[in-house]
Amino acid sequence: MIDLYYAATPNGWKISIMLEECGLPYTVHPVNLGRGEQFAPDFLKLSPNNRIPAIVDQDPEDGGAPIPIFETGAILVYLAEKTGRFLPADVRGRSAVMQWLMWQVGGLGPMLGQNGHFKLYAPEKIAYAIDRYEREAARLYGVLDGQLARTGAYVAGDDYSIADMACFPWLITHKAQGFTLDDYPNLKRWFAAVRARPGVVAGTAVGRMARPGEMDAQTKQNLFGIAAK
Amino acid sequence: MIDLYYAATPNGWKISIMLEECGLPYTVHPVNLGRGEQFAPDFLKLSPNNRIPAIVDQDPEDGGAPIPIFETGAILVYLAEKTGRFLPADVRGRSAVMQWLMWQVGGLGPMLGQNGHFKLYAPEKIAYAIDRYEREAARLYGVLDGQLARTGAYVAGDDYSIADMACFPWLITHKAQGFTLDDYPNLKRWFAAVRARPGVVAGTAVGRMARPGEMDAQTKQNLFGIAAK
Repeated sequence: MIDLYYAATPNGWKISIMLEECGLPYTVHPVNLGRGEQFAPDFLKLSPNNRIPAIVDQDPEDGGAPIPIFETGAILVYLAEKTGRFLPADVRGRSAVMQWLMWQVGGLGPMLGQNGHFKLYAPEKIAYAIDRYEREAARLYGVLDGQLARTGAYVAGDDYSIADMACFPWLITHKAQGFTLDDYPNLKRWFAAVRARPGVVAGTAVGRMARPGEMDAQTKQNLFGIAAK
Repeated sequence: MIDLYYAATPNGWKISIMLEECGLPYTVHPVNLGRGEQFAPDFLKLSPNNRIPAIVDQDPEDGGAPIPIFETGAILVYLAEKTGRFLPADVRGRSAVMQWLMWQVGGLGPMLGQNGHFKLYAPEKIAYAIDRYEREAARLYGVLDGQLARTGAYVAGDDYSIADMACFPWLITHKAQGFTLDDYPNLKRWFAAVRARPGVVAGTAVGRMARPGEMDAQTKQNLFGIAAK
């Protein structure tokens, strides 16, 4: 059994999708980010960076004590190695998946996060920051579109992998981020193919978050680091 | 032989340090970021995200064609698996290293990058953005200091690993980032220990970049995405 500490965000969906794709049994433990449950001492023991998602594997392969794991990229690699799925064993296939997984973790995720912050959530409209992250987000969309043109299939090659599961949830938010997939034909083709997978449908259906308009000031501070006034 | 496409930046140092620590023979190919060489078509074949560093392994373990690899996290994992060093094989040790490696790739690196941009390089001083990234950088320094207090040794446990090699180069810039390690005693202890390693001394000595004050407008645009006026 896997314990999943979760909220329905792009990073949360990465792991709910992976668990569904692998058919691993799991228990969802909702973490209410608006109430600041990500700062609770018991949660910080699992996830010292105060971020969701985190998992605890109650049945690790060495038969020892449960293993807590934070960081979506590390969780995806752990579950892939535990199940032998979605991360090739051969040196080339494996490296291709790791490269594009790291590209999502280090680039697409953080930069779309900043784009969303300055475009949607920051209390001031700051032209320089909005422009900076719009351009970087558009660059990253273009890089991914180019890669999908080269592979003609999935992010890291012919086969669906944890690199797709890392990238897809951040593309779900493309309209809010100010993008249309019509500008990125390869991305559009891939997005439709991934979205139709039963594991993706089931994974993205887990939980639902309140919309920003429904949030109070303390909730916004917990979620977006915006100081309450 | 490993070909290393490189500039002397925190991300470049991660890989020059790893190559020195492993004693792997390598050839440095400087990439002049100020001249925009990261956008050259031949470089983009190796590194489609137009970022340094990238490597080409001329002697992959499957005996096939050379393998190009981009993204520092993916390069570190590849070299660790190639050499059997700095990434434990047991499920617990391996996962600990992967968690803190991903934490650096997805958090410490990108957020210190934003902090540096708004504090040092952006042509406008934007209080909201400076405050946002200062607070996030301070939070991340605190998370790492807390982890080093728990381990009492290295980032992912008792042993030096690729997680240390990922984090250390970004801490080199702590003064420019507005931090003193006196505020983070565990980080200070670890920083001194890592800095003294011969592989780290050799790795960080590879190449040297021009300082921002020596740069022209086109160079700044290539490096920092600041539009020339």
